[in-house]
Amino acid sequence: MASIAEERKAPSFPIREMTYWLDGGKDVTELKERVMLELERDPLWRVSDHPNLTLAQTRERAMTKVRRIADLAISRPIEETGHRMSLVSVVDAGFWTRVGVHFGLFFGALQGQATPAQLAYWMSRGALSMQGITGCFGMTELGHGSNVAGLETTATFDPKTDEFVVHSPTLTSTKWWIGGAAHTATHCAVYAQLVVDGKRYGTKTFVVQLRDTKTFELMPGVNIGDLGKKMGRDQIDNGWIRFTHVRIPRSHMLMKHTKVLRSGKVIEPPLAQLAYGALIQGRVLMVSDSANVAKRALTIATRYAAVRRQFSDGTPGAPENKLLDYPIHQHRLLPLMAQTFAMTFAAREMTAGYTRLMSQLSAVGDAKGAEAQEVIKNLKETHATSAGLKAFCTWMCLNIIDQCRQSLGGHGYSSYTGLSQAYSDFAVHCTWEGDNTILTLQCGRYLVATALEARNGQPLPSNLSYLADAQKAAAPAGSSPDEVCALATLKAAWSSVAANAIRTAVRDFEAGLAKGLSKDNAYEFSSAARLHAARMHTYTYLLHRFDAQVAQSPGALRPILTRLARLFGAHSAVQHSGEFLLAGFYSPAQVDALKAFVSTACAELRPDAVPLTDAFGYSDYVINSPLGRYDGNVYEKYFELVTELNPQKPVPYFDSVIRPLLERTNDRDDGPELEFDGEE
Amino acid sequence: MASIAEERKAPSFPIREMTYWLDGGKDVTELKERVMLELERDPLWRVSDHPNLTLAQTRERAMTKVRRIADLAISRPIEETGHRMSLVSVVDAGFWTRVGVHFGLFFGALQGQATPAQLAYWMSRGALSMQGITGCFGMTELGHGSNVAGLETTATFDPKTDEFVVHSPTLTSTKWWIGGAAHTATHCAVYAQLVVDGKRYGTKTFVVQLRDTKTFELMPGVNIGDLGKKMGRDQIDNGWIRFTHVRIPRSHMLMKHTKVLRSGKVIEPPLAQLAYGALIQGRVLMVSDSANVAKRALTIATRYAAVRRQFSDGTPGAPENKLLDYPIHQHRLLPLMAQTFAMTFAAREMTAGYTRLMSQLSAVGDAKGAEAQEVIKNLKETHATSAGLKAFCTWMCLNIIDQCRQSLGGHGYSSYTGLSQAYSDFAVHCTWEGDNTILTLQCGRYLVATALEARNGQPLPSNLSYLADAQKAAAPAGSSPDEVCALATLKAAWSSVAANAIRTAVRDFEAGLAKGLSKDNAYEFSSAARLHAARMHTYTYLLHRFDAQVAQSPGALRPILTRLARLFGAHSAVQHSGEFLLAGFYSPAQVDALKAFVSTACAELRPDAVPLTDAFGYSDYVINSPLGRYDGNVYEKYFELVTELNPQKPVPYFDSVIRPLLERTNDRDDGPELEFDGEE
Repeated sequence: MASIAEERKAPSFPIREMTYWLDGGKDVTELKERVMLELERDPLWRVSDHPNLTLAQTRERAMTKVRRIADLAISRPIEETGHRMSLVSVVDAGFWTRVGVHFGLFFGALQGQATPAQLAYWMSRGALSMQGITGCFGMTELGHGSNVAGLETTATFDPKTDEFVVHSPTLTSTKWWIGGAAHTATHCAVYAQLVVDGKRYGTKTFVVQLRDTKTFELMPGVNIGDLGKKMGRDQIDNGWIRFTHVRIPRSHMLMKHTKVLRSGKVIEPPLAQLAYGALIQGRVLMVSDSANVAKRALTIATRYAAVRRQFSDGTPGAPENKLLDYPIHQHRLLPLMAQTFAMTFAAREMTAGYTRLMSQLSAVGDAKGAEAQEVIKNLKETHATSAGLKAFCTWMCLNIIDQCRQSLGGHGYSSYTGLSQAYSDFAVHCTWEGDNTILTLQCGRYLVATALEARNGQPLPSNLSYLADAQKAAAPAGSSPDEVCALATLKAAWSSVAANAIRTAVRDFEAGLAKGLSKDNAYEFSSAARLHAARMHTYTYLLHRFDAQVAQSPGALRPILTRLARLFGAHSAVQHSGEFLLAGFYSPAQVDALKAFVSTACAELRPDAVPLTDAFGYSDYVINSPLGRYDGNVYEKYFELVTELNPQKPVPYFDSVIRPLLERTNDRDDGPELEFDGEE
Repeated sequence: MASIAEERKAPSFPIREMTYWLDGGKDVTELKERVMLELERDPLWRVSDHPNLTLAQTRERAMTKVRRIADLAISRPIEETGHRMSLVSVVDAGFWTRVGVHFGLFFGALQGQATPAQLAYWMSRGALSMQGITGCFGMTELGHGSNVAGLETTATFDPKTDEFVVHSPTLTSTKWWIGGAAHTATHCAVYAQLVVDGKRYGTKTFVVQLRDTKTFELMPGVNIGDLGKKMGRDQIDNGWIRFTHVRIPRSHMLMKHTKVLRSGKVIEPPLAQLAYGALIQGRVLMVSDSANVAKRALTIATRYAAVRRQFSDGTPGAPENKLLDYPIHQHRLLPLMAQTFAMTFAAREMTAGYTRLMSQLSAVGDAKGAEAQEVIKNLKETHATSAGLKAFCTWMCLNIIDQCRQSLGGHGYSSYTGLSQAYSDFAVHCTWEGDNTILTLQCGRYLVATALEARNGQPLPSNLSYLADAQKAAAPAGSSPDEVCALATLKAAWSSVAANAIRTAVRDFEAGLAKGLSKDNAYEFSSAARLHAARMHTYTYLLHRFDAQVAQSPGALRPILTRLARLFGAHSAVQHSGEFLLAGFYSPAQVDALKAFVSTACAELRPDAVPLTDAFGYSDYVINSPLGRYDGNVYEKYFELVTELNPQKPVPYFDSVIRPLLERTNDRDDGPELEFDGEE
């Protein structure tokens, strides 16, 4: 404990002020602290015993908490609910999903796709407050995930009865991965092919009742099964659903965009793109979640590294060295710390941009003119940026969790130290709400298309304005680490590398066209270059946003934030050093300087490592790992937790299994010796 | 199923012959097939239901299998046992560990460290056959893992009674992570500080009885607890052990190397290094295991990608495209396939080298002269190479598992598709038997030391002979992919990059010395460069061994193996392209050619992707994933497995939890309206 106390003696920055800045203000910090205390004191919210619960116990406990969160969600201000959920996502990711399926996906579908009258109807049925209705979200099928347009479930209009008939025609059309279906939901927002008079109109959304709200019996024609054990997030009961000619009123199709009239006439919306805005929200949330989960992982790894000692330099009587004092350990953790700050700031800017976009979207309504076109342009830009950020931030966070876990040595493999479950819980972020690889390709496609438009004289959107600067950017003359790694120089370097990667993707795309490929196939042909361009673009975006945030930060924080921003830019550049040499921005000697700078920056940040984790402001309850405790009392508390949760009992299968093993005698039958065996 | 059948119509190589070559001969393949059939038919060995077992069930089932494997291990030829265990490691990694702790670690300690009389004694007590004795391995402590010399447990000689007193003096000296301690072991090979007459002689090994072999009661002074849930490998019951003045006969210290005579006189061995040979075996096994586990992961991912279809190019009535036909999906999987072959061949050569070393070691015995020095040199070389290979192959395999899992999309998150558990089980390979980061630094230290010796005129050891060639190697003149990616050119390129990285590590080490640092601290100072040198060296080693195996391979296999070797070399080079540009081996245009070659090589290997998984020769039982089935019947079998293991039942907590949620009414108390509230 003395080991960690000495870490806090002389931080180079005011810790509390950093917390306010990261949280977005003193008020927010205090609100989060109130919420953390409220969670910590409620016995329902115990999380340290999660590793010892069975699947059934895990799910039941999660459900008991749903009511608490639902009551708070409707009685407390929305901002508080937002902060509560973002903490819950770090503390108890699977439970967050169980709640999020109702409020975010099911109710979100109503909000985004219902007409005002439909929304009012479902509100009156209790769909917001979970009074009478619990919802789930039926998009994915066994055979279709990313390709939503290819879903097989059908909703066929029956003009005779004014109903839709919802049906799963094949095994692969079985709804799959539906969170809340196995145990929770009474209703489902089902994505199905709208069929009217034999004609298909594409995938629309229909509210289908799954269970009787009084008895929880399945409704006629509805078949549901449990998907059982998953890699993580076992708090949420994913299930499969098959529909066999299930009839729902016509008015249960959500008709904000496409409408089906009583006559069967289908009215399609003027601007289908406007419906895609809702997809962005989940991605923005996942960028925030990446930052938050990374903060927890780094808090655990960094504090442990300030307490754990291993090997000494031989001085008699001297204690062994702290892990954190080894240059290699600094190299393992501190660049990840810089990445975490980069994600935090990107999440902040992305959230603000998303909020702006949503108010533009609601202002423009159903209009079509130039104004709508402008909003659609902004939508595309936000869509592409959020796609790239979602993909690379979730990958970055997943890597941070595992690197932090590995940095704990063997103790990282225990379920009681927190990071193995964090990894399993987090991993799905790389797949759902848009598979990362597909999102990167979408981002890359946008980059190629925008670069081609710019070549034709269109103005560059703001997130790509660096392309114009990139050409003017000059490489530094000298090769000292300070020249090479000035923040402005790193920004120019990254801009130039991203511009180069986009040029290469355009080149490959055009080479595909020149071969006579269709536009889509030319995009496929250029997919490796597109993915690469999306990565370079996203890193460049992260560094530019980091820099912008540093410029706005309080003066007392600017030195350390600048150091972190430079480490982020330089370390990422070393990881992709080939690209910098290829783009001709840095010389080989300058790349050597980048590497030297990373080592120096790690050493300079070393004394602030623990204070930086303090600034993240997570209580021991949220950290939920004896190795990441604020007071550094790791061994005692780890031992206590393990022994409390695993009290020693006699080996249950000693008599039945072990004794017979130990007491067995050889029972091998080699047969009689044959009389003639010596005769040959 | 037709989708996968068409994949097998025209492989470019004879599949069966490839299997023989990978396994090491037709005999070996047939033996492995017999073992796979035997496992598959024995109901004890069912593994597809593992996700649904509780921790207690998992452990009990594993223990019931121990007897079967123990009987087979003592009655069947050792070669067969080796192959059985290597299959078991893929099918049931945690069980492999439970068995391995006894046979590999406990009995291995006896074999390696006991005198002949001691070994005979323990054999007669049933320590090999698990008749009367089950063993565990007590090295790691709560506070010490990597630094074995720093272990705190003491074994103090009591000359009055001719006993050792084994004692855990502190909380951090508690033995921790001891596999088999919680439920299985009667005896433990305990690593403790030998103390005689107040003097410490370093860490030695002592056999301590933990439990009564008849009743399984703990022995006096022995305290054991259960470490409970882990990230993976729950089949093995890791525990903690505390010793409170436990007395054992002097003859229970293993005295092959250091001896304690009746008088208390301590005789230390002439060549302490010779004791380190045993450490290498585990590392060699983990290189093999990396290759084998990667084969399983790739089989699942590749076969699924040949069946899963998503998105179409719009041709009416045409089926959607196979994932495997997307260039980006080929980029995701086929370089991993090449890595898997590289690891397979490295494992083969490493195993042969280890076997040679062991026979040298046993031939040289206790001799001291030039011969012994030669063996010690070989030991150091093998130690360093195996350390680097263990680290980078386990990291490589862990990455392969997760990339393969992510390539399954959402289905990769199900516990029934096999790869999430594979990841959790495998992850510990990066930590135990030498934490990867520490091993890479050891390898790097060897490289620096050897390079310095070579500068002083010492001959280069065989694993570093490429350093001499590297200086002569000429970069290709042209920049066509074929020139740049000829196997000989890639080898020269990698040699030159590794040589450069070693030079840089030497430079940093010497810069540390020049600053006045001690030798050890200069090594710490150069740790980032050392780690990098170890990585470059190990990739170079992998490519050189791959090339050597290609040269020895049957003619019919050589074209495809050459293609894989070139893809391995080129893809790894693209991943580290900065190093090739820094080393001045490739020009920017040639690096572009490398990237183009990777795309072409992936496209050329695409038609052989499924045949390559067939050549790995794992039966559906070993693959243990409905998505990786040989016949491609993925959806039906996945659905069957999920529904069989999770039969639908009424929601157990409907009445207690869900009904009150749905039926609750608002219970919020806003208080009376106060008379004076409108008055201000």
